[in-house]
Amino acid sequence: MNEDPKMSALKFVVFLGTTREGRLGERVATFIMNQIKQRGHKADLFDPAVVGLPLLVKPLHFYKDKSEAPEILRDMNQKIIESDGVIVVSAEYNHSIPPALSNLLDHFAGSSFAWKPSGIVCYSPGQYGGVRSAMQLRAMLGELGCISISNLFAIPKVHERIDESGKLTGSQEFTLKCADSFFQQLEWWANAAKHQRDVVSASSSK
Amino acid sequence: MNEDPKMSALKFVVFLGTTREGRLGERVATFIMNQIKQRGHKADLFDPAVVGLPLLVKPLHFYKDKSEAPEILRDMNQKIIESDGVIVVSAEYNHSIPPALSNLLDHFAGSSFAWKPSGIVCYSPGQYGGVRSAMQLRAMLGELGCISISNLFAIPKVHERIDESGKLTGSQEFTLKCADSFFQQLEWWANAAKHQRDVVSASSSK
Amino acid sequence: MNEDPKMSALKFVVFLGTTREGRLGERVATFIMNQIKQRGHKADLFDPAVVGLPLLVKPLHFYKDKSEAPEILRDMNQKIIESDGVIVVSAEYNHSIPPALSNLLDHFAGSSFAWKPSGIVCYSPGQYGGVRSAMQLRAMLGELGCISISNLFAIPKVHERIDESGKLTGSQEFTLKCADSFFQQLEWWANAAKHQRDVVSASSSK
Amino acid sequence: MNEDPKMSALKFVVFLGTTREGRLGERVATFIMNQIKQRGHKADLFDPAVVGLPLLVKPLHFYKDKSEAPEILRDMNQKIIESDGVIVVSAEYNHSIPPALSNLLDHFAGSSFAWKPSGIVCYSPGQYGGVRSAMQLRAMLGELGCISISNLFAIPKVHERIDESGKLTGSQEFTLKCADSFFQQLEWWANAAKHQRDVVSASSSK
Repeated sequence: MNEDPKMSALKFVVFLGTTREGRLGERVATFIMNQIKQRGHKADLFDPAVVGLPLLVKPLHFYKDKSEAPEILRDMNQKIIESDGVIVVSAEYNHSIPPALSNLLDHFAGSSFAWKPSGIVCYSPGQYGGVRSAMQLRAMLGELGCISISNLFAIPKVHERIDESGKLTGSQEFTLKCADSFFQQLEWWANAAKHQRDVVSASSSK
Repeated sequence: MNEDPKMSALKFVVFLGTTREGRLGERVATFIMNQIKQRGHKADLFDPAVVGLPLLVKPLHFYKDKSEAPEILRDMNQKIIESDGVIVVSAEYNHSIPPALSNLLDHFAGSSFAWKPSGIVCYSPGQYGGVRSAMQLRAMLGELGCISISNLFAIPKVHERIDESGKLTGSQEFTLKCADSFFQQLEWWANAAKHQRDVVSASSSK
Repeated sequence: MNEDPKMSALKFVVFLGTTREGRLGERVATFIMNQIKQRGHKADLFDPAVVGLPLLVKPLHFYKDKSEAPEILRDMNQKIIESDGVIVVSAEYNHSIPPALSNLLDHFAGSSFAWKPSGIVCYSPGQYGGVRSAMQLRAMLGELGCISISNLFAIPKVHERIDESGKLTGSQEFTLKCADSFFQQLEWWANAAKHQRDVVSASSSK
Repeated sequence: MNEDPKMSALKFVVFLGTTREGRLGERVATFIMNQIKQRGHKADLFDPAVVGLPLLVKPLHFYKDKSEAPEILRDMNQKIIESDGVIVVSAEYNHSIPPALSNLLDHFAGSSFAWKPSGIVCYSPGQYGGVRSAMQLRAMLGELGCISISNLFAIPKVHERIDESGKLTGSQEFTLKCADSFFQQLEWWANAAKHQRDVVSASSSK
């Protein structure tokens, strides 16, 4: 085991939650991906606008023969399974989860997400930072098996705080402090779960 | 005014909430549409599998020139505006709103839904009838302006209670009683709101 | 009917949601009560610190013989029944409904609240104004039968915006505009429901 | 470390969520306490009817001098801090968290609950088992820092499944299977978090 438990390199999957023209989520996702790299971790970004899945017709776990499923689904599923934690970058649409985010998540079985923590990053151009959407995400991520950490990384007035390239603008200190608290907590739970998965796996293979 | 306030013919829009292969929502929507007709009302059914909208790229109210928006969006919007009430027929995916439903609703401005009641019909093949999804829908419909009536029409083990043609199977009494309570309450609020819209409209046109 | 439908004098019941030492809810409730009077309406304020009910042991509707119930419960119940609308003034405790508020509401049957609209006023000393608590209140008020209007009157940094006597401090324009929007919508639905109650009542007494 | 990671003896705190006359929660709590003992763990039960706290006037963390706080609060706080996991036994009142439960939880700081998992046991005399209340509890427990595991132990028609002494009645197999799944998952996360607390503690004391 690494001597500093916070420093183990971890693998995350990051779900971007919007496909809307002019969406602000892209810049938030870029900022998050950069933070992950700076902390020595790795991450795959799942962008529904790039993945290009239609509204849910057939989730991966509904294919009896998985080889008949679209390759993109099987690839994503493998990355989710191999990850140490899940991050969702979510807007708030009508006080609720954006459909592009729930649609992406609904394509996979809970067993792919299980035994991992998740972190909720929410944002809005307004003053409430998408925290209502975050409450619904606690329910959804809980059911999927990747239980959401306490810390919510909420970013109100996101367009004034992160530019299109994912760089912080204006007063950066507060956002960086929030990001650090969020990642410290996520790393803590990701390491806890990773160790426990290893222990159980070693125990069951004896 | 009609002598029996419950008997005014009303116009509803019904949102079907799923596009999944083998979805059970279709039979529920058919049952609801039949109930509406039997009660002397009219309704338009919006089926996301038929409407064929992609994951939200541009909601109708984001078009500066509405004539550039897809015709289907403008047609649906007109029907929403002219309706006396909104009904959503919702599954529950991972304890949350199915993306096909939120995606459809998110395409329209709150002003199209405003000053109307809504009714939540939820269902599941399991024992909880989708009531967790219904709680999230209260938040979403509330924000949209069509506030959801108290009565939830929840249908657990839906595949045992409604067949593919939308007909009730087995013991029908309970489901019919639930449907009647639901519609009585929805009609009450729809009539209340309709009258108030008329009063305000008459008052402001003086 | 009054010529201006917005001007009918209405009766509200206002539930204050906290009993905590140093609570900020009192000033919000005072502000709301003053607004109600200024708009020509009447209201009863239910303050859990004054009402003095214990944690729920026996709700009013659990008494077979209502005359054995505490007088305060019977009085409050009568006022709820006679009101045209319900207003809750809610803090947010751990992202949830304050127990003093749910405890007060849980003492009464849904039938006392039925066929009325409700309005949610939420506040916090922080930046999110208690909107997460408001989402839970939509579920609770919906079940009680007094369905919550779309408009949420959320007051972030409440201690900087309303003083201990219930007067607005600093820039008052924004808070007054929010209050006006909130009350206009609540009055609209209260009038709608009041008229419908009258129609149904007249119809059934024929 | 124990050879079988599931077998470490753990300490839990169990919050009973109701004070109502004739409450069904007591039998559920007794059943849960017995299960905990049978699995080789220890637990303290916090019963709001016994604890006797009033509606929230002053949470423990609001006392500058903790020695001035009621002894019961300090005792409970110590047990929460020393526990490996939190279990809430919750009814559902008006689709929401019972006030006796939120009132108890609100008396303590999030720091007392932090870095632990929690498990939600919900029940109802009806068919939905209190799952709507559970959704609100995910939000509350998440904010408190004891993040709720995926598995919900929901018990519909509880009066037919557990008798007053906490013993299972009728067909016991299903309830026992649900309990076992619930506890296996809770133990997994409790062990994961316990190990991580130890690692971080050892690391920081070097």
